[in-house]
Amino acid sequence: MTIQQPIASTTEDLMANAIRALAMDAVQAANSGHPGAPMGMADVATVLFNRFMTLDPKHDTWPDRDRFVMSAGHGSMLVYAINHLLGYDDMPMEQLKRFRELGSRTAGHPEYGHAKGIETTTGPLGQGISTAVGMALAERMMNARFGEDLVDHFTYVIAGDGCLMEGISHEAIDLAGHLKLSRLIVLWDDNGITIDGGTELSTSTDQRARFAAAGWHVQAVDGHDKEAVAAAIETARVNDRPSMIACKTVIGFGAPNKQGSHDVHGAPLGEEEIAAAREALGWGWPPFEIPDQVRDGWRAVAARGVEARADWAKRLATSPKAEAFRAAHGAVDAKALDAAICAYKHRLSEDRPKVATRKASEMALEIVNGTLPNTVGGSADLTGSNNTKTKGQTPVKPGDYTGSYIHYGIREHGMAAAMNGIALHGGMKPYGGTFLAFADYCRPAMRLSSLMGVPVVYVMTHDSIGLGEDGPTHQPVETIASLRAMPNHLVFRPADAVETAEAWQIAMTQEATPSTLALSRQGLPTLRTRHTEANLTARGAYLLRDPGARDVTLIATGSEVEIAMAAADLLEADGIKAAVVSAPCFELFAQQGPEYRAEVLGTAPRIGIEAAIRQGWDLFLRPEDDFVGMTGFGASAPAPDLYRHFGITAEAVAGLAKDMK
Amino acid sequence: MTIQQPIASTTEDLMANAIRALAMDAVQAANSGHPGAPMGMADVATVLFNRFMTLDPKHDTWPDRDRFVMSAGHGSMLVYAINHLLGYDDMPMEQLKRFRELGSRTAGHPEYGHAKGIETTTGPLGQGISTAVGMALAERMMNARFGEDLVDHFTYVIAGDGCLMEGISHEAIDLAGHLKLSRLIVLWDDNGITIDGGTELSTSTDQRARFAAAGWHVQAVDGHDKEAVAAAIETARVNDRPSMIACKTVIGFGAPNKQGSHDVHGAPLGEEEIAAAREALGWGWPPFEIPDQVRDGWRAVAARGVEARADWAKRLATSPKAEAFRAAHGAVDAKALDAAICAYKHRLSEDRPKVATRKASEMALEIVNGTLPNTVGGSADLTGSNNTKTKGQTPVKPGDYTGSYIHYGIREHGMAAAMNGIALHGGMKPYGGTFLAFADYCRPAMRLSSLMGVPVVYVMTHDSIGLGEDGPTHQPVETIASLRAMPNHLVFRPADAVETAEAWQIAMTQEATPSTLALSRQGLPTLRTRHTEANLTARGAYLLRDPGARDVTLIATGSEVEIAMAAADLLEADGIKAAVVSAPCFELFAQQGPEYRAEVLGTAPRIGIEAAIRQGWDLFLRPEDDFVGMTGFGASAPAPDLYRHFGITAEAVAGLAKDMK
Repeated sequence: MTIQQPIASTTEDLMANAIRALAMDAVQAANSGHPGAPMGMADVATVLFNRFMTLDPKHDTWPDRDRFVMSAGHGSMLVYAINHLLGYDDMPMEQLKRFRELGSRTAGHPEYGHAKGIETTTGPLGQGISTAVGMALAERMMNARFGEDLVDHFTYVIAGDGCLMEGISHEAIDLAGHLKLSRLIVLWDDNGITIDGGTELSTSTDQRARFAAAGWHVQAVDGHDKEAVAAAIETARVNDRPSMIACKTVIGFGAPNKQGSHDVHGAPLGEEEIAAAREALGWGWPPFEIPDQVRDGWRAVAARGVEARADWAKRLATSPKAEAFRAAHGAVDAKALDAAICAYKHRLSEDRPKVATRKASEMALEIVNGTLPNTVGGSADLTGSNNTKTKGQTPVKPGDYTGSYIHYGIREHGMAAAMNGIALHGGMKPYGGTFLAFADYCRPAMRLSSLMGVPVVYVMTHDSIGLGEDGPTHQPVETIASLRAMPNHLVFRPADAVETAEAWQIAMTQEATPSTLALSRQGLPTLRTRHTEANLTARGAYLLRDPGARDVTLIATGSEVEIAMAAADLLEADGIKAAVVSAPCFELFAQQGPEYRAEVLGTAPRIGIEAAIRQGWDLFLRPEDDFVGMTGFGASAPAPDLYRHFGITAEAVAGLAKDMK
Repeated sequence: MTIQQPIASTTEDLMANAIRALAMDAVQAANSGHPGAPMGMADVATVLFNRFMTLDPKHDTWPDRDRFVMSAGHGSMLVYAINHLLGYDDMPMEQLKRFRELGSRTAGHPEYGHAKGIETTTGPLGQGISTAVGMALAERMMNARFGEDLVDHFTYVIAGDGCLMEGISHEAIDLAGHLKLSRLIVLWDDNGITIDGGTELSTSTDQRARFAAAGWHVQAVDGHDKEAVAAAIETARVNDRPSMIACKTVIGFGAPNKQGSHDVHGAPLGEEEIAAAREALGWGWPPFEIPDQVRDGWRAVAARGVEARADWAKRLATSPKAEAFRAAHGAVDAKALDAAICAYKHRLSEDRPKVATRKASEMALEIVNGTLPNTVGGSADLTGSNNTKTKGQTPVKPGDYTGSYIHYGIREHGMAAAMNGIALHGGMKPYGGTFLAFADYCRPAMRLSSLMGVPVVYVMTHDSIGLGEDGPTHQPVETIASLRAMPNHLVFRPADAVETAEAWQIAMTQEATPSTLALSRQGLPTLRTRHTEANLTARGAYLLRDPGARDVTLIATGSEVEIAMAAADLLEADGIKAAVVSAPCFELFAQQGPEYRAEVLGTAPRIGIEAAIRQGWDLFLRPEDDFVGMTGFGASAPAPDLYRHFGITAEAVAGLAKDMK
């Protein structure tokens, strides 16, 4: 394959070739990485940034900046090269030379929080484009609230074949098309190459027809024809639908002997090919050297953004909505929330409702949504089951973004990624629901919530065999353990309405940690009948029933705390003193000091009780202790029958306790 | 909304209404379940079975039967009603009366293995249609091997809006369209209703255009017009592409006051509405009573299948391929595999290669694929990284199914579901690869492998921070724990080429348990230098280095066993006797007797070593023991730097051991 364009002549050509040179040189220096995508998409990215992107490297979190998401995250060097050239102060050339080294900001894939100007972590394919849908949705919702003076920007995505083959892309594309997210523009790196070889090995999909079927505006261009790319972006910007621009590109464009083949995707080009590429591109400068003309070109992009941001700041200063806008982007009003939750808990301790914790979650959400103005609820088509919609909430609709509730459709994974995007965009706090068993469908996006430290809240109801007749496909037995395994993720399994309210309070005030609330389908009594101002759930586990000197300690979570309390009653009748520990959040208990933990757990024999597998319970249990729970999948039957069948009963617990004593 | 057809008059109309009556009566009796889909799709299903399906209820595993997959698994009563009416001997009326009761065969969702004629477990949306793609692919592959005399059948799917909104459906549809799986026919229950309300709440996708974009043949019919449905199926059967028939239906058809609304989706109709439905449908019989005319109609379907199977049996009896065909459907030749693996292990003990276990996996696969004639390999576009393709394997291509390797594309979830389908179809043993971190993408389908007991093999390479520069998005730290949490799933993490071969041997001889092989990217020395005929990996964990009386026991898996061995050397130099336990499979170790476990673990202080989180290690470790591993996400850097950075080194282990002693 031969180079398809003349030797670089314009500044814009040189700006693109600067990306290519930095990408191939950094990958070579690291002896690891992906030169193919940055070199192939350098022209498209240069046109996008040079002619359209509005950003200010000195104010990288400016709310009204355009968002750029490199969904094909393996092409991270494209991002780092651009951010260096734009002049982000944390991306000096030295960082590019240290690509993929320990402690550098230039990680193998773009990592949110590692360097400025990285809007989201990408690498797991399909996540970037799906997260961008959340960003574009948040933009429209914030626009509806604050007007175009304060919120009026675009979300641009570079996506590869991998992103478009992943299932999550279907959920994201459908949701964006349905909601008419007109500020979302996806540039598809249509290079016809995957790792195994040509795309014809595994796909025959007409991507343009596919996007059109989902309600998108679709164009196709030669991705190395800068004027064509510019014209297409121009057209996309004024269309009232989300836009996909198929950019026909040559992967590794510029490497004369390797371009257009999968060999250029994920390995250094080698010194010889790099020299040949330099010649073919007419790039005469040594590695990591950028001529002034090119640097000036890129700095002009930044200068345009600086001006735009200054104008915006003036508008904000005089806006009647300035205070509300700033508040939306600041920390949650923890004081107000604490006061509201405290008052609510006090009422609960008197009312003592017997409700499922999914219902208790709705009750707590009434407080949360009534106190915090910028929550965004939703469910993956289980609104009435997840109880995620509170009284005041109206749904977001195509073209009408004033609502604060999202019908995500039967798209758990897309919902999770969109919530990441909403949270990353800023200004709103998303939560969304599905059945706990279907956390598996969300898991890759939940992992990114944790890795990025995005405080999304997952409302996962029907959290055990207690859901009954729907059977083992719907009954999580290993799901709680699998979520507790995830670093930087709070898993709450509240026992009653009080703990549910406390869990919501903690989840909504997290700044860098996502939460999952595992909630029951079945009704549960209020066990915390004595009101405390303190949020006891914040300790992770606490003594719910303290008999003083104890013969046995029963430790339970969620719906099984009721069973533990009943077992303690049975034991008491037999003269055995049982303490009951409610353990709504393992992660928070693990953070407590040794004294507190020792005080709660005591030295007596222990029994853990959870309608799930034992894995992870060694936080509480020693080898000599016992566990009442599940050892395999559940079954389809009414919940009480299942609890009896699997031996998760107060009688079984009491029997064990007697044997242990 | 009024009933759109006249009172039932033909036998076929009555056959359809029998499904409706049984569905609404069983759901009412259970006071739980989903009448909407069975009532809405009763006409389509009746036409499908009455005029097309070939099956023999007395030989429910007859290999050349047509497959029927109820992807909208909540409509399970449609399946149970039909299977009862067809005369499956394990589905007497009593089972329908016990719908959703403990111990009945009529679980809330169709569960593979619970009753005859259930081809796969469904309920988690999108899984059925995606599993069916694997079945339809297996049919074509078996047809290519054994000819149309022995293999020539269809796979029919009923899918709902939920199935088509799920991301996995995109992967499945694209793969099926690409491979031109002409024997796959999807009947879409286009009823415009989801749980939250009308589909217009969350989707605007033109499904017909979408399927066409993926290379499908598409038709649309009134799903209550039986002749139209029949004509469409007829047309679909002779098309050379997979077919989607959009069947416009009224959910809950027949319930005069509730049909066409989401109220009829997932709750009993109530006695009053059921009475009204009986009148509207002209169905005069009491609950659970079927008139002879109707029963005869359904039994005629079965009779047609009995005849077809008898003809097929005659063809098989005289086929020169009969022996091979029977062998393909029988158990693996465990003896031959054992001999081949033993001979290979013997060579390894002499050659002692230093290879990554992903490479060792390829070497073992050369033996496996050379010994077992019916393995089917594949990868989600990481063939060269997963090392899943052996020398003799050629890829399956559109229209050419002679190969035994599948380029699944960047579709981990679709791959996993397709492998379930291939295994369920029978005749072939599938394995497929991706990076271990992306097990999360496969997880809902992996869970079904485990729940159904389908012995699929997942080849998951790049199994720790040892993958290096790609960074935390690609580094599984919690993934191994999350897979060990899954019931009925063997997770192998072999330490060297010998254990890798042993793991493959165990995985390939499983009959009802899927396996995951977690394999290193980085090179590892052969540690099992003394040849044993016995498969030591089958014990789950064993003493790799036994110093006799020991001061400390080091327990490690996979790439960290090398570190444990090096630590033992360091300790030996200081006069401390360290035993090293290699623990390639926790699940198998948990199955060993207490004597063996005590012998392996000893009583000395223990240190667990795994470049992953500790969760699950209480199988080996007591509270006083120690663990060297990860506590959070990884980072992007060369692997040796990461091991040092996170303190997973022989020096660190030896230091800890000295402190413990």
